Amino acid sequence: MKDIQNKLLASVEKLFERKQFKSLKELLSTMEPADIAEVLAEKAPAERVFLFRLLPKDIAIEVFEFLEGAEREELLGSFTDTEVAAIIEEMSDDDRTALFDELPAKTVKKLLAHLSPEERKLANALLNYQADSAGRIMTPEFIDLKETMTASQALARIRATAAKKETIYTSFVVSPERKLKGTVHLEDLILASPDTPVTDFMDGLPVFVTTDTDQEEAAKTMSKYDLQTIPVVDRESRLVGILTFDDILDIVQEEATEDFERMAGISPVDESYLDAGIMTLTRKRLTWLLVCIVTQLFSSFILERYSFVLESVVALAFFIPLLIGTGGNTGTQAATLVIRGFTVGEIVREDLFRVISKEIVSGFLLGISLAVLASIRAWTMGTGYGVALTVAASVVGVVMLGNLVGAFLPFAAKKLNIDPAVMSGPFITTVVDILGLLLYFEVARRVLVLG
Amino acid sequence: MKDIQNKLLASVEKLFERKQFKSLKELLSTMEPADIAEVLAEKAPAERVFLFRLLPKDIAIEVFEFLEGAEREELLGSFTDTEVAAIIEEMSDDDRTALFDELPAKTVKKLLAHLSPEERKLANALLNYQADSAGRIMTPEFIDLKETMTASQALARIRATAAKKETIYTSFVVSPERKLKGTVHLEDLILASPDTPVTDFMDGLPVFVTTDTDQEEAAKTMSKYDLQTIPVVDRESRLVGILTFDDILDIVQEEATEDFERMAGISPVDESYLDAGIMTLTRKRLTWLLVCIVTQLFSSFILERYSFVLESVVALAFFIPLLIGTGGNTGTQAATLVIRGFTVGEIVREDLFRVISKEIVSGFLLGISLAVLASIRAWTMGTGYGVALTVAASVVGVVMLGNLVGAFLPFAAKKLNIDPAVMSGPFITTVVDILGLLLYFEVARRVLVLG
Repeated sequence: MKDIQNKLLASVEKLFERKQFKSLKELLSTMEPADIAEVLAEKAPAERVFLFRLLPKDIAIEVFEFLEGAEREELLGSFTDTEVAAIIEEMSDDDRTALFDELPAKTVKKLLAHLSPEERKLANALLNYQADSAGRIMTPEFIDLKETMTASQALARIRATAAKKETIYTSFVVSPERKLKGTVHLEDLILASPDTPVTDFMDGLPVFVTTDTDQEEAAKTMSKYDLQTIPVVDRESRLVGILTFDDILDIVQEEATEDFERMAGISPVDESYLDAGIMTLTRKRLTWLLVCIVTQLFSSFILERYSFVLESVVALAFFIPLLIGTGGNTGTQAATLVIRGFTVGEIVREDLFRVISKEIVSGFLLGISLAVLASIRAWTMGTGYGVALTVAASVVGVVMLGNLVGAFLPFAAKKLNIDPAVMSGPFITTVVDILGLLLYFEVARRVLVLG
Repeated sequence: MKDIQNKLLASVEKLFERKQFKSLKELLSTMEPADIAEVLAEKAPAERVFLFRLLPKDIAIEVFEFLEGAEREELLGSFTDTEVAAIIEEMSDDDRTALFDELPAKTVKKLLAHLSPEERKLANALLNYQADSAGRIMTPEFIDLKETMTASQALARIRATAAKKETIYTSFVVSPERKLKGTVHLEDLILASPDTPVTDFMDGLPVFVTTDTDQEEAAKTMSKYDLQTIPVVDRESRLVGILTFDDILDIVQEEATEDFERMAGISPVDESYLDAGIMTLTRKRLTWLLVCIVTQLFSSFILERYSFVLESVVALAFFIPLLIGTGGNTGTQAATLVIRGFTVGEIVREDLFRVISKEIVSGFLLGISLAVLASIRAWTMGTGYGVALTVAASVVGVVMLGNLVGAFLPFAAKKLNIDPAVMSGPFITTVVDILGLLLYFEVARRVLVLG
C-alpha cells in the first residue's frame, strides 16, 4: 500500500517538474483525495494554488475538506469570489461548520455572504449550537422517511435523494411533526419484500443524542452501541441532524490529544505542533509552569525553616531529589490510571473509596521495594544508620503520599465538575514535592533528635 | 437518552426482585444488548447466569460479545458443553478471536473442540497471525463479487449472503484467483441501472492493508481515507478479510490508553483499573520506578561531590526542589507534544531539527519568565545577589535542558524503533533532575567563586 502511494507521489512530482500538466491532471483525477491533499500540503503556496486549479471540481471539494486550516484559508484567499462561493456551497455541512470554526470571525462573515440563502440558514443554524456539542458538528443531510411508506417507496426516496446526503445506510422515520419515530437500516430495507411497511422493520427505539449533548459523550454513546450513525434531536424530540462515524473518530483522537496535553500541564493547542507558532506554544505551556513554580516557592520556605536540620546533617540534602522525584513519579502514575479510567468510563465518582484503598496498599508495596534500594545507598555512604532510617521511612511515606494525592485530586476535580485531566502530572508532582519535603524533615527531626 | 436508560435499568431491577420472570424476559428482549451487558456486569455471578439464560438466543450472543473477559469466562464455565458450542459457533469471527486471545491456552483448546471443523479452521487461521496485526483482528465474513457480474446479479448475491456477513455496505470484487480487483459501495450499486457491469462502478484502485500490517497502522489508514471498511490481503494480494469501523474505534481507544500508561511509566495493563489485581498494578508500575530511583541515585553522588558548596551556602539547597521540579515539568511538556505528534502523524523523524530549534527558542522564553519569579524570591531572602543570580541563570538553563531532553529522547526512541511513548514523563524528569543538578552547582561554583 505504502509503496504504491509513494510511487504515485513520485510521479506527480516528476510530471510537475517536467511541466506535463495534461498528464498530471489525468493522474490527479485517479488519486485518492486524501493523498492529493498530502501532496498539496508539501508544496509552496503558489504551486499549491496551481495544482489545486488542475483538479476536477468534484475532487477539488473533497481535497479541500482534507486540507488543514491554514492551507484552506490561504487557498480561499487566492480565489475569486465566484470560485469561493462554489467551493463553500459544495462542502458538506459539517465540514463547512468545522471550516468556519477555524477561521477568524471577519472571514466567516465574508464567506457566509457567498452562500445561497438556504445554505446560509443551514450554516447559521449549525453555528448557533454551543462549541463541542453534538448540534455543532451534526449534519442535517440525512434521509427522512414517512411512517406510511412501504419498503419499495422508501427505497425510491433513498434513490431520489441519495446524492446530497451524508449516508444512505441509515434512514430516519419521522412523524408529520418531524419527531423521530425510528431508524431504518438499508440492509433490512434491501432484504425486506417490497410491500412491507417501514414500521415493520424499523428500529422503533433507536439510540439518539440531543443537540446539546457534549460531543465526547456522543462519541461514547456511538462507540458503546457500535453505531455508524446516530440521530440528533432537539428539545422537542424533533430530528434535526445526524452524526456519522468519521465525526466520531475525529472527536476521539482530538479528545485524546487534549487529555495528553492537559495531563502534561499544557492548555489544548488547536494547531498541529509544527504549524503552531512558538509564541502560541510558549503561552499554552506557561500558565501551568507559573502555577507550579509559585507553588514550588513553598518548598524554599520549608527548606529555610528546616535549615537547622540541613546544617547539622548536610547528608540529608543528598536525598532530596531522589525523594521528591520518586513521590512525583508515583503521583503521576496514580493520577494517569485514575484519569484514564474516568475517560474510558471504567471508573466513576462512586469508586473513590475502592480506588483509594487500592492505592494505599499498592503504595505501601511499591514504597517498601524502593526504600530498600535507597537506604542501602544511604547506609553505604557512611552517614550513620539514622540517615538511612530517615531515608527508608520517608521513601515509603512519600510513595504512599504520591499515590494518595495522585488518586484523590482527579476525584476532587470530577466532584467540582472540572475535567479530571487538568490535574496534570506537573501540578500533582509539585504538590507531592512540598508535602514530601515536610514529611522528610519531620521524620529526620524525630529520628535524628534535632531541633 | 440517559433518563430512558436509567428507567429501563430500574425496571429490570424491580422485576428481578419481584421474581416476575416472564415480564422480565419480555422486557429484556426489547433492550439494547449493550445495556443488558451493563446490567449483567453489576450482578453477582449466580444472578448473572440466571439472567443470561432468560435471554432469547440471538440476543444472548450479542450480549455475550459485549461482556468483559472475566465475566465471559465465568459464564462459559457455568454452561454445558452443548450450550458453549452454540455460543461460540454463533459469535462473529473477530469477536471470537478476541475471546480466545483473552482466555488461558488450555480453555481455548477446549473451546476450539466445540467448533464445527469449518469454523475451527477459520478461528485457527485467524489465530496464526501475529498479535496486533490486521490479520489477527480481521473478519473473513465479507461479500465477494465476480468481475463478470452485473449490478442486479451483485445485488442478488448480496441479498442471498447478507445474513452471515459483517457488512453489506461494501462488497469486494475478486478475480478467479481471489485477487482483490475492486470495491463496490452499496450506494453505487443501488443507484446503478440493473444491467451495468460491476466493473463500471467499482473503485478499481481501493485502499487496502495486508495481514501483517500493524493494527494501529491500519486504523490510521482507515481514519485518513475516512473508510468504514478496509480490505485485508495476504502476501499474494489475495483478499482474505476485512476490518470494519468498530474494530478501529476499539484500537484507537486501546492505543491511547497504552500511550497514557507508558508515558506515566506504567507497562500496559490489560484489565480495567478496578478489575486489575493490586499485585498486577504494583508490578506494572514497579519497573520504571526502579529504573528511575536507580538513576536518581546519581543525584545523591552529585550532591555529595558538591557538598562543600552546600556547606558554604546552605541557602542553595532551598532551591533544589524548585529547580529540578521546573526542569522536570518542562521536560514532560516537551516530550508530550513530540510523542503525541508522532502518534497522530503530525511529526515525522525528519522533523528533528525543526522541533529542536522550536524547543530551544520556547525554552529560552519560558526560562526567562520563570527565572524572574524565582530570583525575586531568592533576592528577598537576603542571601545576597550571588544566590539570586545563580538561581536565575540555572532556571533558564534547566528549562532549556528540560525542553531539549524532552524533545530529543522520543526522537532517539523512534530512531531505535522503540515506541516513543516509553520515554515516559518519570524517566525524562529523572534525567533532567540529574543534568539540572550538575548545571546548578557548576553555575553556583563559578558565580559564588567556591571550590
